[in-house]
Amino acid sequence: MSVAIVGAGPGDPGLITVRALELVRASEVLVYDRLVSPALIGEAAGAARIARETLTQNEVNALLVHHGVRGRAVVRLKGGDPFVFGRGGEEVQALAEAGVPYEVVPGVSTLTAVPGLAGIPLTHRGVASQVTVLTGTTGDGEDLDYERLAATPGTLVIFMGLKRLARLADGLILAGRRVDEPAAVVSRLSLPDARVIVGTLATIAALAHELESPAVVVVGEVAALSYARRLAAAA
Amino acid sequence: MSVAIVGAGPGDPGLITVRALELVRASEVLVYDRLVSPALIGEAAGAARIARETLTQNEVNALLVHHGVRGRAVVRLKGGDPFVFGRGGEEVQALAEAGVPYEVVPGVSTLTAVPGLAGIPLTHRGVASQVTVLTGTTGDGEDLDYERLAATPGTLVIFMGLKRLARLADGLILAGRRVDEPAAVVSRLSLPDARVIVGTLATIAALAHELESPAVVVVGEVAALSYARRLAAAA
Repeated sequence: MSVAIVGAGPGDPGLITVRALELVRASEVLVYDRLVSPALIGEAAGAARIARETLTQNEVNALLVHHGVRGRAVVRLKGGDPFVFGRGGEEVQALAEAGVPYEVVPGVSTLTAVPGLAGIPLTHRGVASQVTVLTGTTGDGEDLDYERLAATPGTLVIFMGLKRLARLADGLILAGRRVDEPAAVVSRLSLPDARVIVGTLATIAALAHELESPAVVVVGEVAALSYARRLAAAA
Repeated sequence: MSVAIVGAGPGDPGLITVRALELVRASEVLVYDRLVSPALIGEAAGAARIARETLTQNEVNALLVHHGVRGRAVVRLKGGDPFVFGRGGEEVQALAEAGVPYEVVPGVSTLTAVPGLAGIPLTHRGVASQVTVLTGTTGDGEDLDYERLAATPGTLVIFMGLKRLARLADGLILAGRRVDEPAAVVSRLSLPDARVIVGTLATIAALAHELESPAVVVVGEVAALSYARRLAAAA
């Protein structure tokens, strides 16, 4: 495989996969996201290292194809998992259309890390049996469909919802959710400065206004479980 | 940390995290799930290795506590991620109640691996903006709430749904889903004998009857995207 679309995990460099680290170390060209650990970028000692933020998505696609057709060992290193709202699909499509062989290496998503590292179970017997995942930032700038969202049973997990948190909480309340429905924000999970804030739909935006990206928002009764409170207090 | 609750990833031993492999190699006691790769179990060369299937969940909890209080390096190695329907919460709770220090190492979930490795995007602009995850096997033996499930917008991903696939598909149809709604089964993802079968709610149980665990079921329009068909055909 000449181009690899690789998940770096939630932030802690130990949470990258063995296969991903192997590819990073052997890479000749590394295109990395802003939130990827510097320790991981440092592992690509022999590579031309390119920050993704300096480029548009189309330029990233073109860059991967350019080096890929020349048979170079290219790694596109993305925070979390490449396909959990990570636009990995667009990059894979560009490579496939250009006939460039590629490999996908899935990563540990923040979603998966929330229960173990933030202490918030996403499902819990008698409380929530399903979890719905979405992004708070629609690609086309449209707002979320709060009516549908409010009617979705179980736990809600919203990626990239921190910036619009007040609007999200208000939208859910206006669409019928209780003002005292538990909500939490988990910020910079797996990193030394991780934070977990637990409140309600009415209070969460004010409580979490100082938190930093990347963050996920959890809405539902699970956010209030004592398990969550205890670990959050200990953090 | 004396006890680590560790995700092994979806199956391919290269998809374990760097931190998890480090803990496995240093372990004195390893309790592993049936679906964990033998290559990973072999990495715990100096450990007493115990198959989880020989024990009840209560016995697993007691075993972790027993060795944990004695300060031994214990690793509980679970398929996928410990908290995505992996009952990691019960083990963590037993350790916390016994005052045993523990560490959680999240893993790559099959959920995360589906888009990149099976070619089925879970969300797609204009097709599905959210994904709902649940287990097909409720712990208390109750059936799923098909009315609520059928009314949930977006993509559905059902873990451990293979055995009850016919019932699941019938339940969704009876609750109002279209018979020709696309559905897919992804079996043994990331392993050499991985399979992806794409059909509809009417046909999927018959098409997938030979597939083996572990498997996830995907229901929704995303299962029919050409991207999915192409990669499935190439597999």
